[in-house]
Amino acid sequence: MAHRTITVLPGDGVGPEVTEQALEVLLTVADLYRHDFTVHRRLAGLAAIAEEGVAISDETFDLCAGSDAILFGAIGSLPAEQRKNATVRPEQALFRLRKDFQFFANLRPIRPSRSLYHASPLKPEYLDGTDLIFVRELSAGLYYGHLDAAIPGKPSEIRRTERGEEAVDTLLYTEQEIERVVRAAFDIAAVRRGKITSVDKANVLSSSILWRRIVDRIAPDYPGVEYEHILVDAAAMFLLRDPARFDVVVTENLFGDILTDEAAMLTGSIGMIPSASLGVRRTEAGVFGLYEPIHGSAPDIEGQDKANPIGAVLSAAMLLRHSLGLPDEAAAVEAAVEEVLADGYRTVDISEDGAKLVGTRELGKRIATAVRRP
Amino acid sequence: MAHRTITVLPGDGVGPEVTEQALEVLLTVADLYRHDFTVHRRLAGLAAIAEEGVAISDETFDLCAGSDAILFGAIGSLPAEQRKNATVRPEQALFRLRKDFQFFANLRPIRPSRSLYHASPLKPEYLDGTDLIFVRELSAGLYYGHLDAAIPGKPSEIRRTERGEEAVDTLLYTEQEIERVVRAAFDIAAVRRGKITSVDKANVLSSSILWRRIVDRIAPDYPGVEYEHILVDAAAMFLLRDPARFDVVVTENLFGDILTDEAAMLTGSIGMIPSASLGVRRTEAGVFGLYEPIHGSAPDIEGQDKANPIGAVLSAAMLLRHSLGLPDEAAAVEAAVEEVLADGYRTVDISEDGAKLVGTRELGKRIATAVRRP
Ligand SMILES: CC(C)[C@H](C(=O)O)[C@@H](O)C(=O)O
Ligand SMILES: CC(C)[C@H](C(=O)O)[C@@H](O)C(=O)O
Repeated sequence: MAHRTITVLPGDGVGPEVTEQALEVLLTVADLYRHDFTVHRRLAGLAAIAEEGVAISDETFDLCAGSDAILFGAIGSLPAEQRKNATVRPEQALFRLRKDFQFFANLRPIRPSRSLYHASPLKPEYLDGTDLIFVRELSAGLYYGHLDAAIPGKPSEIRRTERGEEAVDTLLYTEQEIERVVRAAFDIAAVRRGKITSVDKANVLSSSILWRRIVDRIAPDYPGVEYEHILVDAAAMFLLRDPARFDVVVTENLFGDILTDEAAMLTGSIGMIPSASLGVRRTEAGVFGLYEPIHGSAPDIEGQDKANPIGAVLSAAMLLRHSLGLPDEAAAVEAAVEEVLADGYRTVDISEDGAKLVGTRELGKRIATAVRRP
Repeated sequence: MAHRTITVLPGDGVGPEVTEQALEVLLTVADLYRHDFTVHRRLAGLAAIAEEGVAISDETFDLCAGSDAILFGAIGSLPAEQRKNATVRPEQALFRLRKDFQFFANLRPIRPSRSLYHASPLKPEYLDGTDLIFVRELSAGLYYGHLDAAIPGKPSEIRRTERGEEAVDTLLYTEQEIERVVRAAFDIAAVRRGKITSVDKANVLSSSILWRRIVDRIAPDYPGVEYEHILVDAAAMFLLRDPARFDVVVTENLFGDILTDEAAMLTGSIGMIPSASLGVRRTEAGVFGLYEPIHGSAPDIEGQDKANPIGAVLSAAMLLRHSLGLPDEAAAVEAAVEEVLADGYRTVDISEDGAKLVGTRELGKRIATAVRRP
């Protein structure tokens, strides 16, 4: 029996709906395997701005700091007109969590399920054998303009010059920042199929040249892992032409943002993809992390019981595995998801003729029920 | 009868093979329509480094400056070991041409041909109706680190600090740089289906916030054009889920690099895609530009008569249209390509069961012959 603490930040948009189902699955696991999970549920994003005036309060932040893991839903952006003069913006919650907890390794597995091939834009023969995981650097690079304002030589601003306005962003990576994420990726490859693809733009960027050098330097520490470098534009092609060639893909923050969303489409719906953002602090049986589906807040379908809860539920499975040290429980949740899909249950984003179309809640409930089945 | 001057830079790898076919098509057009094309053929890239010690010589550069257009093949990178200490690198030719001639608008049309649906990773129903063109900003942004070293506050370098090495690249855009490419995109949309999608990452980057503002400011000048902003990660998804929703897509340099390669796969092969890089100088009947297939130098198939010449031939068609002011001739070349594809001729990258598999030269010759047919 394990005692663990989880802070739940459902966020806004469809975040609360999908998170509720993920939490239900976690509580089912606790019940079934006799663990003791303490759960704190708090506001973040638009909901927090409305109630507390900030994207995430210090108190909520401290609660996260004292937990084994954060289960996160989704947060949206302000509407265009409100953005312009806003000093408080919902994304700040995510940026602050990622930055201050140094969630440097963002894991996004892409494994198209055969029962959802119909929902993918790709032909089945291109999907066969695809089972890859992205390790996206999440704590540095072009991100964090306003948070990093204090770092000398790292501007992110719009400024007036004699010839009008100009805008600047800074892509900065230190050796340590690259090293830790590359090592995390090699560690993962070592327990998977033993292959790493490092993605950069070394024919253009100084930061990519350093990135490549560090990969070359670390690789000999992992003699069982084969590795290659490819350019980001080529990676965008290979993800479509031959996705099965990849095992672990490691890349910097913004490249990872773009490529993971592209790759997500292979599975048929971005609603299917979980993620884990792993930090530096060890927990009792794993590492402190934040877990969230990679889909956004989708305000257009908010409150309609339409969102796909699978990305959130699979994020909860990653939470069990990486932060709580409960790999069997994680596998049970993943198996339950496969089972419910094999039984033909679908939310609208992955539906097809003859499928059993259900809402967020019913799909979540069916997964929780499947977890209980021996 | 038009007198025009074209500088041809075949480059290296498969560049010379595909460029030869494109040139043959141009000379066929000259012959048939009784134009007088003066052609200068010069070295660039690896070939120029081997013969002249530089990626592109000043003399070649001046010849380009005096031409109506540049027909470009492809240039490769140095092998990894040679890169490390190299001061002369083949890509420098491309960067110098783009930068010094201010080729700011890079046009990349994506229109999957029905006769090549079999070669695309996407299901046919996702390809139907797709006919879009990218307008990629090509003269600024994160590119040109070493060329822009003189610009204060725009570092691109690897440097030592107390805690090891760090690398920095600078994403800088001035108002003028954004304005000119956005206007070019609106001009194109106005004569197409009247829809623009501007792609940025305004929830993270200051440069994207300025970009968005400028698009909003220019849009009212084009009341017939509908426009939208989307985030680059969403764009990477929509290009797969619903490519037919796009007409003109305008974006900054590096986003354009990644998204156009992704989109190229829709057509089945990157060997199919032409490009035009338009500058600021007016020619007699158009605008000075550089035309190149978007595929690279593919050294693995160099000299094997395997490369697909269609990207290069369609680039020559764009050259006729945009720099030489010969739209009918351009249309004739495009029709000839469609005809040869409809007749079943294929290079290996787009081949299928029952196709007539031919080499680079034969496909080129067949296109030239088709141009001659009434
Ligand atoms: C919301 C946004 C800032 C975020 C990002 O770009 O990292 C999102 O796209 C993601 O991938 O988690
Ligand atoms: C060769 C490389 C520098 C170039 C670029 O990144 O612009 C290429 O990928 C392209 O798209 O033309």
